Amino acid sequence: MQNGQTMIPVWLDKDLKTVKVIDQRRLPHDLIIADLKTVDEIIHAIKEMYVRGAPLIGVTAAWGVYLAALNSSLIADLEMECARIKAARPTAVNLAWAVDKIMADVRRFHKINDKIQPQLIQSIRKAANSISSLEAENCRLIGEHGLPLIRAISQKKDGNTVNILTHCNAGWLACIEHGTATAPIYAASDAGIDIHVWVDETRPLNQGSRLTAWELGQYGVKHTVITDNAGGHLMQHGMVDMVIVGTDRSTYTGDVANKIGTYLKALAAKDNNIPFYVALPSSTFDWKLQDGLQEIPIEERDPDEVRYVYGLNQGEAQRVLVPPSDSPAANFAFDVTPARLVTGFITERGVCDANAEAILAKFKNDK
Amino acid sequence: MQNGQTMIPVWLDKDLKTVKVIDQRRLPHDLIIADLKTVDEIIHAIKEMYVRGAPLIGVTAAWGVYLAALNSSLIADLEMECARIKAARPTAVNLAWAVDKIMADVRRFHKINDKIQPQLIQSIRKAANSISSLEAENCRLIGEHGLPLIRAISQKKDGNTVNILTHCNAGWLACIEHGTATAPIYAASDAGIDIHVWVDETRPLNQGSRLTAWELGQYGVKHTVITDNAGGHLMQHGMVDMVIVGTDRSTYTGDVANKIGTYLKALAAKDNNIPFYVALPSSTFDWKLQDGLQEIPIEERDPDEVRYVYGLNQGEAQRVLVPPSDSPAANFAFDVTPARLVTGFITERGVCDANAEAILAKFKNDK
Repeated sequence: MQNGQTMIPVWLDKDLKTVKVIDQRRLPHDLIIADLKTVDEIIHAIKEMYVRGAPLIGVTAAWGVYLAALNSSLIADLEMECARIKAARPTAVNLAWAVDKIMADVRRFHKINDKIQPQLIQSIRKAANSISSLEAENCRLIGEHGLPLIRAISQKKDGNTVNILTHCNAGWLACIEHGTATAPIYAASDAGIDIHVWVDETRPLNQGSRLTAWELGQYGVKHTVITDNAGGHLMQHGMVDMVIVGTDRSTYTGDVANKIGTYLKALAAKDNNIPFYVALPSSTFDWKLQDGLQEIPIEERDPDEVRYVYGLNQGEAQRVLVPPSDSPAANFAFDVTPARLVTGFITERGVCDANAEAILAKFKNDK
Repeated sequence: MQNGQTMIPVWLDKDLKTVKVIDQRRLPHDLIIADLKTVDEIIHAIKEMYVRGAPLIGVTAAWGVYLAALNSSLIADLEMECARIKAARPTAVNLAWAVDKIMADVRRFHKINDKIQPQLIQSIRKAANSISSLEAENCRLIGEHGLPLIRAISQKKDGNTVNILTHCNAGWLACIEHGTATAPIYAASDAGIDIHVWVDETRPLNQGSRLTAWELGQYGVKHTVITDNAGGHLMQHGMVDMVIVGTDRSTYTGDVANKIGTYLKALAAKDNNIPFYVALPSSTFDWKLQDGLQEIPIEERDPDEVRYVYGLNQGEAQRVLVPPSDSPAANFAFDVTPARLVTGFITERGVCDANAEAILAKFKNDK
């Protein structure tokens, strides 16, 4: 592994029966590894966000299919478990993508009433492993393709610090290695480019201040945590050179679902002529949807995630209630940034414009 | 007083020596009244945000001038204390406005080496009281002038709920009574119009979730706390009919300094054709500045306000650290929304467009 990353966020234990995940709800103050042995536990970990981020949700779901195969008798049972896994969260398209990718092969060679044989279990394990490796490799390539964008800004600024703003966590914690939005940042850091990252804290769950800040700190990348409110002001005053975010689902027409608040940053970037890039592996494209704003389902989560904030008090992890106890709250988890606000996508096959023509030209066999 | 407001946020005690303020840092979980007996204590309360919000900072500063007069021998000493009060915070223009309004009269009738007589102290007390009453009355008038805007939306929607989004707290806690942004909301509520308020939590100090939610709840106005990230999504989906915010300083050309993040909401309102109003008493106009973005000083506050979140844990008020302990943070307190994004100002003299011509036509004697 590389500097600052000595683990991956999900893996199969040597016992071949336990999926291990970092419980990301507790970072950065506690590093807790959770053991998942059943499909119920996989679903719980996805729903409750022990794991989060589109690629990681996909890989965890793939391991869920493996646990389902391990604990089912018939293909029919496996299918039912897969349907439950796919329903765990609605917005990230990687969830269904990973499950269907494994099941496509299963369905090709098995009938619904077939018994599940050890050989099939072994091949599903290999398939889940492949998805994990594929996402890691895709992220590495995203870094490779994003690096020239940062290098060009650095050169234009005569080697002065390149300031990049990111929202939420699209780092290795959200993927497997490298991350999506962070991959070009890590690549630039490795290449010796002087960079600094503005980290949106990303309310309500603070994936920016808890996870991205932690990742960047571990890797030795200069960064500053800011409120989600601050990015517009920084952009107005020339303190942001580029925005890079991840995505939970993007349409092949270029609309981008990502953590709530992304749309506001995209508007500010546009208003200040700052490039706004979305980094993603092709597994995050939805080849069926045309209109992201109308068609991508936006998850509504527990309002208590807004009302309570988790952090450290005198060395102890606690959560505190911020608003009056009787004030209601709402918790929309994602928003959709229309393609017109996106400068480009950074993918494992290179950078492309945010429109159907450009995206399909790069991924014509995938739709 | 009115339903839900049984106190004002700053007043002079009967002993005529103590300024009493609600310590707003502790709301809604504790209602603590702080005693301020010296200019140092007034400055501390303004800097540390026991009191906040442009009109309230102005009124508190006015009481600071009174305490300064009470504890000074010469006009020269009083002048020095006034200079210190004016420097307590940089962005809200009401601070200097209130001090200068009182001192204009003092300067007219006294030389710098004059002794301060009891009669002068009494007249400064009356002047401070007048400023307090003036701000309360101006807010009442803002409510009166803003009400028709809300009524028109209500009628257009056939009496269905009018959804108003607000950022930060521009309620009676930020003013004296009624508030600025909340004045039309309270007026609409009194008029029986069906309204609901989306309350931006307003990071980092959560004046929305702590103060505005508390005020609205006390008054019986339907409201929902949301993250600062959520407003764009709500606007994209027709869930916001109107935005009303306050301001800490607006140029006579229509640029609006307000709590950090206001600019992002203004961009989203523009992008979705939603009216974006700024409510203010004329004391918040800066008649000297033309270009808000370049000229209004933006306060940078302690980064720990971003890093730590204050709330309630098992009945006890505590603060928790969210990011890694070694991650730096930045804390810009305000941003500037350019006039082009502002639908109009709601003032004590009526509604006007956000440009010099319209503003000066209404306030031609004030510049």
